[in-house]
Amino acid sequence: DTQTKQIQEGISHVEKHFGELCQLFAAYVRKTARLRDKSDLLVREISLYADTETPNLKNGLKNFADQLAKIQDYRQAEVERLEAKVVEPLKVYGNIVKTKREDLKLTQSARNREAKQMQQLERMRQRNPSDRQIIAESELQRATMDATRTTRQLEETIDMFEKQKIQDIKRILGEFVTVEMTFHAKALEVYTTAYQHIQSVDEEGDL
Amino acid sequence: DTQTKQIQEGISHVEKHFGELCQLFAAYVRKTARLRDKSDLLVREISLYADTETPNLKNGLKNFADQLAKIQDYRQAEVERLEAKVVEPLKVYGNIVKTKREDLKLTQSARNREAKQMQQLERMRQRNPSDRQIIAESELQRATMDATRTTRQLEETIDMFEKQKIQDIKRILGEFVTVEMTFHAKALEVYTTAYQHIQSVDEEGDL
Repeated sequence: DTQTKQIQEGISHVEKHFGELCQLFAAYVRKTARLRDKSDLLVREISLYADTETPNLKNGLKNFADQLAKIQDYRQAEVERLEAKVVEPLKVYGNIVKTKREDLKLTQSARNREAKQMQQLERMRQRNPSDRQIIAESELQRATMDATRTTRQLEETIDMFEKQKIQDIKRILGEFVTVEMTFHAKALEVYTTAYQHIQSVDEEGDL
Repeated sequence: DTQTKQIQEGISHVEKHFGELCQLFAAYVRKTARLRDKSDLLVREISLYADTETPNLKNGLKNFADQLAKIQDYRQAEVERLEAKVVEPLKVYGNIVKTKREDLKLTQSARNREAKQMQQLERMRQRNPSDRQIIAESELQRATMDATRTTRQLEETIDMFEKQKIQDIKRILGEFVTVEMTFHAKALEVYTTAYQHIQSVDEEGDL
């Protein structure tokens, strides 16, 4: 029926988009790691250049390179934390969605079975109204109750899935922002020191 | 002589290391641009996912994506400013160093020519002390003065080169830090808004 189709479509959307988000966040992390690699080379080169310079400038450049290296340590932490708190949970989500889809399939087929059974009982009663001893009222009642229960179960499963999904995407995107903000805040702090080191190089001192 | 060799070595160091710094900063900028590209894809994907979602979550995701897009605009500005204020000045520096090397070569050869001329005059005076009319004292004096002047010019050229170099590397690294800090500060600000948008999604509202 329509409701079933809508539910399955919803799950398919989540499966598809969480999968794509996972891949794109993983690519974001990889590019961040490449930026860290290039920055590491910059740190090394600034230090090599410093070794060829006069004492004041050499000192300023060495301190500057140290700060830039510190930022790359924070970038490395950023990479590891994004991997653990964003990419990994999104990857795991693929399995969660698969399990949910199975749960849903089982509940739906139970529901369909019961609905069929109820229709059958109803038809029998209409054809042979006198056969009350054969199709006991109690049996029909039980079937009705079962169908109601299974439908409620189905609704609960879907509600739980939806609720879990909203909580998970909120948590995952929240973690992404937290990790990024931590990095940006640290970078700001360390760059402030780096700026002081390079600006304090005495322009006359080495002449 | 030793001084000349030291000076030429110094200029070669600057030429080599400014060139390598230029290439590495250019690579840093390229990697930053790649990170922006991936982030743009993330923004698009979050927005596509939002379109398949219930109103509250959709709204939160769309706002989140808008903020993430804003950060990529700032990253684009970062890329352009690093290109203009760090990579380009380092590239131009290659030519400055070449010009300085030429200046230095000219001054040094003038100095050598004068030194030789002085030695010649001195030798002539020692061999023929009587030929005072031929090798006028005034001529020797002039040669001495010229040599002194050229040496002072050479020293000034080198001092200027050194001073300019210190000012330039301070300015260029200072610009790098300023551009980076501006980006990090803006990112912090925008992520704060993004966090609020995603955390304010009502978990019950869409059920």
